[in-house]
Parts: sequence; C-alpha cells; structure tokens
Amino acid sequence: MATTVTVWNEYVHEREHEAVADLYPDGIHGAIADALGDAGFETQTATLDDEEHGLTEEVLDETDVLTWWGHAAHDEVEEHVAERVKQHVLDGMGLLVLHSAHLSKPFRKLMGTSCGLKWREAAETERLWVTNPAHPIADGIDDYFEVPEAEMYGEHFDVPEPDSLVFTSWFEGGEVFRSGCCYHRGQGRVFYFRPGHETYPVYHQEEVQHVLANACEWATQEDGSGVVRGNHDPIEDLDTSDDRTVH
Amino acid sequence: MATTVTVWNEYVHEREHEAVADLYPDGIHGAIADALGDAGFETQTATLDDEEHGLTEEVLDETDVLTWWGHAAHDEVEEHVAERVKQHVLDGMGLLVLHSAHLSKPFRKLMGTSCGLKWREAAETERLWVTNPAHPIADGIDDYFEVPEAEMYGEHFDVPEPDSLVFTSWFEGGEVFRSGCCYHRGQGRVFYFRPGHETYPVYHQEEVQHVLANACEWATQEDGSGVVRGNHDPIEDLDTSDDRTVH
Amino acid sequence: MATTVTVWNEYVHEREHEAVADLYPDGIHGAIADALGDAGFETQTATLDDEEHGLTEEVLDETDVLTWWGHAAHDEVEEHVAERVKQHVLDGMGLLVLHSAHLSKPFRKLMGTSCGLKWREAAETERLWVTNPAHPIADGIDDYFEVPEAEMYGEHFDVPEPDSLVFTSWFEGGEVFRSGCCYHRGQGRVFYFRPGHETYPVYHQEEVQHVLANACEWATQEDGSGVVRGNHDPIEDLDTSDDRTVH
Amino acid sequence: MATTVTVWNEYVHEREHEAVADLYPDGIHGAIADALGDAGFETQTATLDDEEHGLTEEVLDETDVLTWWGHAAHDEVEEHVAERVKQHVLDGMGLLVLHSAHLSKPFRKLMGTSCGLKWREAAETERLWVTNPAHPIADGIDDYFEVPEAEMYGEHFDVPEPDSLVFTSWFEGGEVFRSGCCYHRGQGRVFYFRPGHETYPVYHQEEVQHVLANACEWATQEDGSGVVRGNHDPIEDLDTSDDRTVH
Repeated sequence: MATTVTVWNEYVHEREHEAVADLYPDGIHGAIADALGDAGFETQTATLDDEEHGLTEEVLDETDVLTWWGHAAHDEVEEHVAERVKQHVLDGMGLLVLHSAHLSKPFRKLMGTSCGLKWREAAETERLWVTNPAHPIADGIDDYFEVPEAEMYGEHFDVPEPDSLVFTSWFEGGEVFRSGCCYHRGQGRVFYFRPGHETYPVYHQEEVQHVLANACEWATQEDGSGVVRGNHDPIEDLDTSDDRTVH
Repeated sequence: MATTVTVWNEYVHEREHEAVADLYPDGIHGAIADALGDAGFETQTATLDDEEHGLTEEVLDETDVLTWWGHAAHDEVEEHVAERVKQHVLDGMGLLVLHSAHLSKPFRKLMGTSCGLKWREAAETERLWVTNPAHPIADGIDDYFEVPEAEMYGEHFDVPEPDSLVFTSWFEGGEVFRSGCCYHRGQGRVFYFRPGHETYPVYHQEEVQHVLANACEWATQEDGSGVVRGNHDPIEDLDTSDDRTVH
Repeated sequence: MATTVTVWNEYVHEREHEAVADLYPDGIHGAIADALGDAGFETQTATLDDEEHGLTEEVLDETDVLTWWGHAAHDEVEEHVAERVKQHVLDGMGLLVLHSAHLSKPFRKLMGTSCGLKWREAAETERLWVTNPAHPIADGIDDYFEVPEAEMYGEHFDVPEPDSLVFTSWFEGGEVFRSGCCYHRGQGRVFYFRPGHETYPVYHQEEVQHVLANACEWATQEDGSGVVRGNHDPIEDLDTSDDRTVH
Repeated sequence: MATTVTVWNEYVHEREHEAVADLYPDGIHGAIADALGDAGFETQTATLDDEEHGLTEEVLDETDVLTWWGHAAHDEVEEHVAERVKQHVLDGMGLLVLHSAHLSKPFRKLMGTSCGLKWREAAETERLWVTNPAHPIADGIDDYFEVPEAEMYGEHFDVPEPDSLVFTSWFEGGEVFRSGCCYHRGQGRVFYFRPGHETYPVYHQEEVQHVLANACEWATQEDGSGVVRGNHDPIEDLDTSDDRTVH
C-alpha cells in the first residue's frame, strides 16, 4: 500500500512577496509535494487557511507522514490543531519538520525545549556532512552536499540530543549546526531537516528532495507495536489484596 | 558553595489520609529534605498551597536542583508556574522527577510525550537493576537493590529514549520499567526516578535516599556553558549584502 | 532486488547432543534460514566447519545481512575471519547477533566491551517488553511476548548503551535484561537479540521469527552514504603552505 | 581524596624534531601534566620507552584517569599493555583520548570501529562549538572557542554515535567534526577530545586546558556500582531442576 504524505505549509510568504512566488509558484508545499510525488509517494497538501488548517482527524488518520513548513505565522496555528498533530505523532504518524518550522507549535510541543538557535540571512554556502552513514536517511548521499545559498542556522540549537544525528552543517560565516536530527516519540518518528528557505531555491535542489524522500520512507510506521497503558492486572500469580490505596 | 535543593510536594495525601500521615508525618517533602540534608545539601521545601506554589522566580533563582513529587493535584499546578519551572530547567536548574510526578506538568512539558505507563497497587516486590554502572547516579549501589513493597509501573513508559538509562526495574507481577532515566534539556539536567509511593515507606529506605543524593549531585550545574541564540553577525569575512529577505 | 541473508551457525551442539538434534534436525541455522525464507528473504547458510567458516570475501560481498549463532566454539573462529566480518559490517553489511553469540568474536570486536552477563539454565519464563514501540524491529509485536522456556540472561550486560533499546526482558527468577539492542557501526547496522537456546524450541516460535525478519529488513543497507577518509584538500580557499609538519 | 591523573605520551616527535621540542620542551605530557596539576589534580607521567610503557597494573590501579597522546608509534604499543588499559577502563578508570590518539590501540579496541577520519595540516582556524551546554565538560566555556592554528580532522569520523556530543568543530577549509565525544564503557568513562597537535601550541591554550580539567573531573569514578556477572542462582523461588543443558 502506498505511503500517504500530507505536505503542510503556512503559505504566507508566497502570497505576499513576488520574489518568493517566483521561486515557488505553487507554494513551497507544491514544490515539496511534486518532488515526493515523483519519488513515488501519494501526496496531498494542506495550508493554514484551510478549515482546521486542513488537518482534521480524518486527514491525519489517513496520513502516514506529515511534512511541516512554517515561518511567519506559527502563532496563528490553533492550539487544538497543534495538539492533534502531536497526538497523531505519538500514535505513530511520521513528522518531517522543515527549516524555520523549528519554532512551529507541533515541534516545540514534541521536543519540550525552546528550539531556539542562531540565524543570519546572507545567502552563504552551507555544506551538509553525513555524520551517520549507516542511517537510511543518508542513503544515496555522498559524504557531503552543498546548498549554495542558505540562511545560516547556528548552535546552540535548543533541542534534545537526537536519537541519531544524520547531518551536520558547515556555514561560510563560521558556524556549525545539527541539521538532520532523528527522534522517536511515542510510536512515531520525527525528523528535523534544516535546509529550505523562502527566498532561496533550496526545495528545487536534487539532494534536498532525495533526503526528503528518504526521510518519508524512514518515518512511515507500518503496523506499529501494540501499546497498553493504564491500570493493569498482574501477569504472574500475585496477592493483590493490599488495601492501603488512597486512589 | 553548597548546593541548594528545593524539595517540592503537592502535600495532599498526607493531610487527607491518616495512613499516609503516619508514614510521612512531616510530609513526603519533609522526609526527602531530611535525607538530603543529612547528605550535606542545603534544603528548603515548597508545597502546592504556598503562594505561587512556593516557586517564585526568587526561589528558583537560588535553587540548584528542584525535586518534584505530585499525584492527586497535577491539574492544580498553575500553568505559569509550570512554565517557569520548565524555563529554569532550560536555563540550567536540575530537576528530579519522582514516582507519580511522571504526569506532572513540568515533566510532561519537558518530555513532549504523554508520559503514560501501566500501573498497579499491590505492594509487590520491585528490584532495581543497574543498567549503567558507569553513571555517577549509580555510585555506591550494588548491582541491584529491592523495594519490598512497591506500586508497579510498567512499560510502555511514554518518554523519549533517555540519554542514559541508569536503572531498570523488575516487578513481581511480571513487568519491567525504565526506572532511572537521565535527560539533558537546554542547559539543565533532568532525572526521573520511579520509586516512591504515598502508602509505602519508600523514602525512608537507605538505597533510595542514596540515589536521590547522587542525582542531586549529578544534576547540579556549576557555571554552565555560554549560550547565544538569535540573529548573529558572521565570524568569518562574509558578504552580507543579500537583500532578498522577507523578514 | 531481494535481500540476501547468510545464516551462520557454529553447528556443534546439534551434532553432539541428540536432544538438540531433535529440536533442530537441520541445525539452528536450518531453522532460522527456513523462517527467513518463508518471510521472503533469499537465504544461504554457512558453518564453522566450512572452509573459511563459509565466510569468504565473495560470500560476504553478496550478503546484505549476516546472522550469527555460536556458543561452544567461539575460540575456534579464526581471527582473520572474525576481522573480515567486522570489516564488512563497517562497510555496510547488517549483522544479527543471536543469544549466546554475545561472546562471539565479531560482536566483541564491534562492541569493544567484554559483552559479559549473568546467566542460568532453568527453563524459566521470559517476557520481552517493547521499550521502543516506534522502532521498525517492534513492528507487528504486541506490547510484550513470552518465551515459555528460556535460559536467563541478566544485567549487567557489558555492552555500550544501545542506539535504540527495542526489547527489555523480565525473567521468572528475578532479573531483567536489555534483550533487543540496536547499534550503528561505520556504515553498518547491528542488532543483538537475546532469545534462542540450543535446548529449547525458541527459534520455532512465531514472535521470535517475526522479530528476526523485522531485524533483517532494518539491517539491510541499500546504497549507503558515500564515505571518504584520509588526507584531504580543502574545499574552501585556504593557504596550505604551512610546512611545520613532522609527518 | 585527590584525583590521580596519569598522563601518557608516546614522546617521539619532541625528541626527533627541534620545532616540536621548542613548543613542548618537557614533552606534550609535561605540558598536559603541568596544566592538570595547576587545576588541582595529582599527576604523574608515563611514556612509550618506560618499562611496560609505564603502565603496569600497579600504576593503573592507582590511576583515576589516564590521558593518552600518540601519533607516530601506535604500533609500538604492546598488545598486552593496550589490553590492560582497556580492561582498566571497563573496570572504572577514566580515559581521555587526545587528538591523533584516535588511532591508538586502546581507543580502537574500546570503540570497535576503525576510528578513521579526514585530515589536513594547514594551520587553519578551528572553532569548537558547544553542542551540549548541559554537560559538565562544557562548564565555564563560552558558546564556542577557537584554536587559531589547527590540523583539520573531518567527517566521517568512524566512531560509535557518542553518548553525548559536547563539541562540534568548524574548520576554515570547509569541514566539520565531532570534537568532544563522551562514551560509557563498562564501569568507565571515555572522552575523545580533538584539539592538540605536535607542531602547534594547542596544549598551552587556556580553553583547551580548561576542557581537559573538566573532562578529568567528569571521568573520575568514585566507588562505582557493583557489577556481578556469570552463573547466577535465582532470587525468586524457581524450579531449577531442568536438566536439558549441554554445557
């Protein structure tokens, strides 16, 4: 059965700035969905202005992996939708958090940290080095690849130490950044991927598209493992007559 | 300079149930503060009924490590106080999360997961095995120790994979649990420690007190590392004339 | 292209003890290869008595995942073959290390620790709890499964903290064990899986076979990431005229 | 009780090259021992030419932390001494592995990987960024520090993913490197620290000395946790009459 990827975008810059619209005429979501479609995924898109931001229970139930791009309008994402996304991740949905979505509500809720970082817009060279060549998200990537014009993100990046660190970036201006970070959360898998900026053609770059496709494949949960929580009878023979409870 | 530990307790069961008061006549916080005081820490206590729950900016500024016990009244902890605690952890304060505080607001905020688990009250045997004997929190502990009467907590425990797993519990009724979990979050250190229950004398047990003291020592940040975030000029020579920004 | 799994077995107990031969008439390797073949993998077997233990460069070049079972004859594995296996793992071959192979030469070389543990043969109940339900190796497994008759392995298990801990075992006699441990090493993936004993029918059990199949799928590297090491010219403009070298 | 640090150096370059001797008139070991002595540690030194390389059982028994510098003579370290060092680490001794000691026998044995990397000698700028500001090894360090003249080491660095990644380096020529890597192995703690080169005055730099002192403190095991391995009677009541063993 095909993997269904829902590509979410706040879709603000593209409608307000001609330069962004020129780069991404169908929106950043359109560019990402096209690339993932070409890679063999079933894709659909959703944006901030859609009812429930396009992320109803029904849509998320049918989503294997959600990709999230946001920047100017993090605060406009409704609390209950952000919580719903988080819950679906804990229940097994994959989540790809892209570039400036480091400050998005779902990511911050799932990480538990500020997710802050250093930044600078100077169209500088970024070089992403593979720091875990055994990881499937690095599959088919050389020992590094370059983004010729990038916004700089620098350490300290306030996230939990990743369960696996797949990419580490070098920036022309002198900084480094943990650019490809994998997390397991509940039954779900989360991948933060740094490249991607509204005023540079990053999502049209082949290596970036290749990593996004690898990450969608990695983040797709099949059946998952059964999870049981709550009050629980003993499996072994056990005297359960203790009555000191104050519950 | 002495380490200052602030011992927080919701302090509900002890005032409502004679059996609990008999076990902990000075409250669970009193028992923990006594033990940590004997181990050489400066201690102070704070409870739910105190103004701002006893956790003002001033108190937290002077706190090296905060220990947290709660069970019946998680929802009564005010949102802004829980956020303040979280922020102080990210800024370098240590946090020990004890037993049923797995569902406390500060811990859930910092973990980003549901923190749910299996549970059962049957006064059964728990055996805590050291799974990382190189970790300072296990210092002076044999290869295992027992809690003769314990509430069972079982997997799946919905927390991020710990940065280090110091203890793993065996339960008489058939379950296992990751009972001693270390996390780095921002500049702070967090330790979840499972043992401790209102109707069993767990906090009077020598090994439990020993682990708490080890954990306070581990969680104490000295100067910390300098953290800089936000917009940042390049360190290297760099042409910063790019004006395509939509910021 | 189909995944090729090479199933290695020292194949000693089955030829020396009728009770073992009755359980595993085609050898432990035969039972495992049958199960993996039924799950859709291309399989081949190799044993200690084969020339080069059946693990020539040619065989390993064609192997996506190697499974290893040994117990009585670890020392009879030739050093250069153990090194060859290790090198192929670092170059991207998957490795499944089964039960008593915790003391095998390839695993000890790859872990760098003693890989020692506690043990007891008493045909006791083992219950494997899923501690990472987001991991693909747990896919399709309930929150736990039981091995009715197991040799006990207990902590402290002297291995590096796993990159992911998928299963944790409970034993009837009172111990716990980290039973499903994932490691990335070089470009390869290693999974240690505890169940499996020569005198109990563990490899005929459905859940065990299911986990082995999941693990083979997880451990299969596709193209891998390009790895470059050694002396390296600068990518950026750099004055390389420094001549203070003593190389 | 004071922490005893044994500073080991192959001590080859300093005796063969005047330029190195000028930088390190008492040897690299002398410079490191002086710095650690100033920081309050008891220090002693040992070199390749000493009997048993100065690392007898007696010396290692009294050593809390061993620091290791080697480059030209890794192969001259006797196998049994390298094994002895490894065993002492597994038994609780701390180990600091410095710069070109990434290819030393004790480190390669403990990591289980090739420990290879990219390198270049061009006296270029290195900038070490703190990627875990919560870790005690980063205590008192700003968000980064620079080594003005450094040999470049670049990814992929073939080591296991560190238990904590404290520093990540930026190099002028375009590469990044995981420069401060913590590992728990057995009961011991290992820290790999990249800076330090025979033809540059790196070990006279204040920040480098500060990190070395922090790392010695971190790596010092006090009592340690009791470790028991081998055949083991059940703790719980258990029928141990099973006689199907082939042991």
